[in-house]
Amino acid sequence: VALSEFDLIGRYFSRLSGVGSAVVLGVGDDCALLSPPAGMELAVSVDTLVEGVHFPPAAEPEALGHRSLAVALSDLAAMGAQPSWATLALTLPVAEESWLGAFSRGFYGVAERFRVALVGGDTTRGPLAISVQVGGYVPAGKALRRSGARPGDLVYVTGTLGDAGLGLLIQQRQYFPPAYGLGLRDRLERPTPRVSEGMALLGVASAAIDVSDGLAADLGHILEASGVGAALYLERLPMSDAVCAYVADTGDWNLPLSAGDDYELCLTVPSQRQPTLDEVGADFDCALSWVGVIEKQGGLRCVREGAQGCSLEPRGYRHF
Amino acid sequence: VALSEFDLIGRYFSRLSGVGSAVVLGVGDDCALLSPPAGMELAVSVDTLVEGVHFPPAAEPEALGHRSLAVALSDLAAMGAQPSWATLALTLPVAEESWLGAFSRGFYGVAERFRVALVGGDTTRGPLAISVQVGGYVPAGKALRRSGARPGDLVYVTGTLGDAGLGLLIQQRQYFPPAYGLGLRDRLERPTPRVSEGMALLGVASAAIDVSDGLAADLGHILEASGVGAALYLERLPMSDAVCAYVADTGDWNLPLSAGDDYELCLTVPSQRQPTLDEVGADFDCALSWVGVIEKQGGLRCVREGAQGCSLEPRGYRHF
Repeated sequence: VALSEFDLIGRYFSRLSGVGSAVVLGVGDDCALLSPPAGMELAVSVDTLVEGVHFPPAAEPEALGHRSLAVALSDLAAMGAQPSWATLALTLPVAEESWLGAFSRGFYGVAERFRVALVGGDTTRGPLAISVQVGGYVPAGKALRRSGARPGDLVYVTGTLGDAGLGLLIQQRQYFPPAYGLGLRDRLERPTPRVSEGMALLGVASAAIDVSDGLAADLGHILEASGVGAALYLERLPMSDAVCAYVADTGDWNLPLSAGDDYELCLTVPSQRQPTLDEVGADFDCALSWVGVIEKQGGLRCVREGAQGCSLEPRGYRHF
Repeated sequence: VALSEFDLIGRYFSRLSGVGSAVVLGVGDDCALLSPPAGMELAVSVDTLVEGVHFPPAAEPEALGHRSLAVALSDLAAMGAQPSWATLALTLPVAEESWLGAFSRGFYGVAERFRVALVGGDTTRGPLAISVQVGGYVPAGKALRRSGARPGDLVYVTGTLGDAGLGLLIQQRQYFPPAYGLGLRDRLERPTPRVSEGMALLGVASAAIDVSDGLAADLGHILEASGVGAALYLERLPMSDAVCAYVADTGDWNLPLSAGDDYELCLTVPSQRQPTLDEVGADFDCALSWVGVIEKQGGLRCVREGAQGCSLEPRGYRHF
């Protein structure tokens, strides 16, 4: 059944989830109207997923709905912002009801969990692409920026690294594990943005970023923005059993170091705030691991215990 | 030359234009940070242009840059909001520097004219598509909504209608005019959002919408949202000389009535505020024309002087 643009929006995307008093007017007028809370800054970010680039053709629409919003929320998490609203620009070759229903279920599942109101959007015909814009609020002057890391700060990451990358290797049949845990597939297709963790880091972390392009590349953005360098201790990288087994099997440290799509947070903290970070981290839904230290000398140095430095050249990492 | 995503963003889209104190942090971190003014509501809208759907393949990139932002700003204009910031999600098959330079010139030309800061974006590989999200501010409770029209209100439109549609007919070689004014092509490819006009209508108009899908369809949205109907006087529709000549030549009133892409404003005003509207309209950069009246009975009735009603069935118009 071919549906008109207006029917599409009305039928699948007009539900206001997680609405607070901050939403004055949602879907259905020329703009959405929002009421920003006093004393807060507005954080906005946009992420696009394109078929054949960010996900394979015929990807499961429920997972796509989940992932498109989760990936955008991860940017809010990295600033420590409380998510509030989202808009959705959806380009579709055909309007298929079962696809739309599943996509919308996945999208609203994440929206409800993180109390995000879908307040507007634009549905167009064309090659499948999903652009999600999110807005959130953070106390004025308190946002976690990339530029705040100072020499001596400690580097931490949430959760585990390389799971999504390993899931992708397996999905693309480039690696055949002894046993394929379903967890890896979920880590790739249904990432969890570290929203409450990011908010809890306000006033504690000196800098933060979400790990979308791989730890080396994303920590590299912090180093560049802060004008510093870092030493990273490879053996400290937090890894799931599956990724540990992969590294033991292949010797490929690039997976936890440079694979993307994990959407964990990488953060730095001044050493005197380490006790506060330990307290805060105790309430996290995920691990919080110390992995390195910020140094004055620019560049990223990967250190293996017992080895004299390391010649590892992380993929995707650009020197500066 | 193939450029990395980061180079692209940095080289062509990191210029902050029209920045006020409202922009705390622009392009280059996980999110942009904005400082919403006190007492204002935030208006947000998103619009996507897809190659082959909204513009022909190999369209002129400078015009695309102009149009993609102008179209999004038109939604802010329709709410009476002051534009403030924009994000750009750009999906490109290849990163060609001359294309990017021209696109960025067109985009920033509009951004500077309307004092919009480009604060963030996402550049991805894929079939050409442009998604622009805009944010603006409007005094709390004052936004022009679609739902405020009441029986007896007068219906007005800004500018002239059908120019973009005639430009498209000519571009597609479906109509051969005696003389092709360049103005029509600009009306199609480089629309002007009626931003200052929309802001001036705050407290005067009872409802407003921008004419993107054609007057009949867009006025139809006001009628539906307000639970009213309207009579529209065809001879009153404001038309350029070129559209007048087309209608005289072909008898096709559907062009000014139902062709889209003009991005004029359609508004309603209580009759007692007509003198105020006249004063306000005297300062407009464009015409402001009375074209009809809101009625209690639902539906849209097109009236031609001297004729007893009219059997015209506007294209794209849905009954309710």
